[in-house]
Amino acid sequence: MLYLIGLGLGDATDITVKGLQAVKSCSRVYLEAYTSILTVGKEALEEYYGKQLILADRDLVEQGADEILKDADVTDVAFLVVGDPFGATTHSDLVLRAVHAGIPYRVIHNASIMNAVGCCGLQSYCASLLSSVFLLNVMNIPGFNRDHVVLITDFRGKKIYEPPRFMTVSQAADQLIQIVQRRRREEEEGELGVTEDTVCVGLARLGADDQIIRTGTLRQLVSCDLGGPLHSLVVTARLHPLEVDMLRVNAEPDALQHLRVIDSSTFTS
Amino acid sequence: MLYLIGLGLGDATDITVKGLQAVKSCSRVYLEAYTSILTVGKEALEEYYGKQLILADRDLVEQGADEILKDADVTDVAFLVVGDPFGATTHSDLVLRAVHAGIPYRVIHNASIMNAVGCCGLQSYCASLLSSVFLLNVMNIPGFNRDHVVLITDFRGKKIYEPPRFMTVSQAADQLIQIVQRRRREEEEGELGVTEDTVCVGLARLGADDQIIRTGTLRQLVSCDLGGPLHSLVVTARLHPLEVDMLRVNAEPDALQHLRVIDSSTFTS
Repeated sequence: MLYLIGLGLGDATDITVKGLQAVKSCSRVYLEAYTSILTVGKEALEEYYGKQLILADRDLVEQGADEILKDADVTDVAFLVVGDPFGATTHSDLVLRAVHAGIPYRVIHNASIMNAVGCCGLQSYCASLLSSVFLLNVMNIPGFNRDHVVLITDFRGKKIYEPPRFMTVSQAADQLIQIVQRRRREEEEGELGVTEDTVCVGLARLGADDQIIRTGTLRQLVSCDLGGPLHSLVVTARLHPLEVDMLRVNAEPDALQHLRVIDSSTFTS
Repeated sequence: MLYLIGLGLGDATDITVKGLQAVKSCSRVYLEAYTSILTVGKEALEEYYGKQLILADRDLVEQGADEILKDADVTDVAFLVVGDPFGATTHSDLVLRAVHAGIPYRVIHNASIMNAVGCCGLQSYCASLLSSVFLLNVMNIPGFNRDHVVLITDFRGKKIYEPPRFMTVSQAADQLIQIVQRRRREEEEGELGVTEDTVCVGLARLGADDQIIRTGTLRQLVSCDLGGPLHSLVVTARLHPLEVDMLRVNAEPDALQHLRVIDSSTFTS
């Protein structure tokens, strides 16, 4: 059996009881190490599980899937993924290889940034999720300016020679403002709908003890320091009054002057 | 402290280790009982936690929040929610009442249908989530036909005199076809983009041992029987070739003849 097990977002104890039981039963346990991280490292997880972990970088998962799946028809193998196994990065390729090799698989789900982002009070089901790799493409999405958009400023280390790194909320806000200003010079502001005063939410280490949620205008978030990884940035669209109340809990002074609030009677969810 | 704790999607063991520790430390534990259910009931959870649970129906949460929050500034109170506390239904109102009463709160996240739906191979970050209550409004969403749309066919028991019930994949597919056919008579097919042959995915009891994922055309899913609650239905939009490969794993015969597959070179996530 191949188990794909989500680790959630915070530390070692964010694994589910079902996931922990599966890890303990497996003869080999891989830790997917290139799309995201917990606030604790491999060693802390090994101590918590009482198991050695095998780090799985992108090359191993994409080129060495046979090694991961070896004997998984007769023994149990776990593949651990920060967040949910089918969250920001889907592991469809590994699952398809298992299916074609006749190896049964099971997914043990957990929180991902995709649903946990709802804790800042935004109706997460309006969110689209985009890797920071595609920051420049964000504003070309048809739904942009209609839905809240969650930017996962994740690792971008596609190759071994490009070490893991992450983008901060401040950097993402800065890049977005540059795009806004370039478009304005090109007189496309009308269709863009985002300005330096658009209300955004910066999130750092969601689910961890020291998580930070900070609501401010795009301009305000350029100068925020939310500490260590991982960060996410939500660009809000029109807001429901209840969303505004929740944003106010973690808002910068004056941030909420620039809201586009919708009439609650037209809000359909 | 008010703990809002997600229970995940399957059974009692889908709670996180962190969530279980918090439950055991709390003096009162409420189980939110009106938006969703696990495959096990209150008694099974009580036995697993070694704690009595207080059922919280919609009236208690909306009218009796003071009761839930009583003394939570000096003792620990847990509010358990199937899935994630900020998943399909956000509990912003309870959080805001706590904040205004000076009671600290903490969210312990878990999987929700919103991210777990990715296990069927669809890129879940393209999904919008809508309660079945709004089935009739689905096709008026600007992004419909561009994004995959997840229909959570959840409970609709808003009042005590309307008992909890849920919609099956078959019923949801049948209702969608009726809308499609009515619109066709009214000659609006062009802008709708959904027909009886649109590829959809039915999901039942996601995360449980007996979960079922079934891919078929909308017409095929009308006659499917996926068993007990909870069900969800995904109406797919244009599909990436890798999504097609994953859908094929659980597909009805002939279901995938009617695909709108996009050129992978234009797929930006």
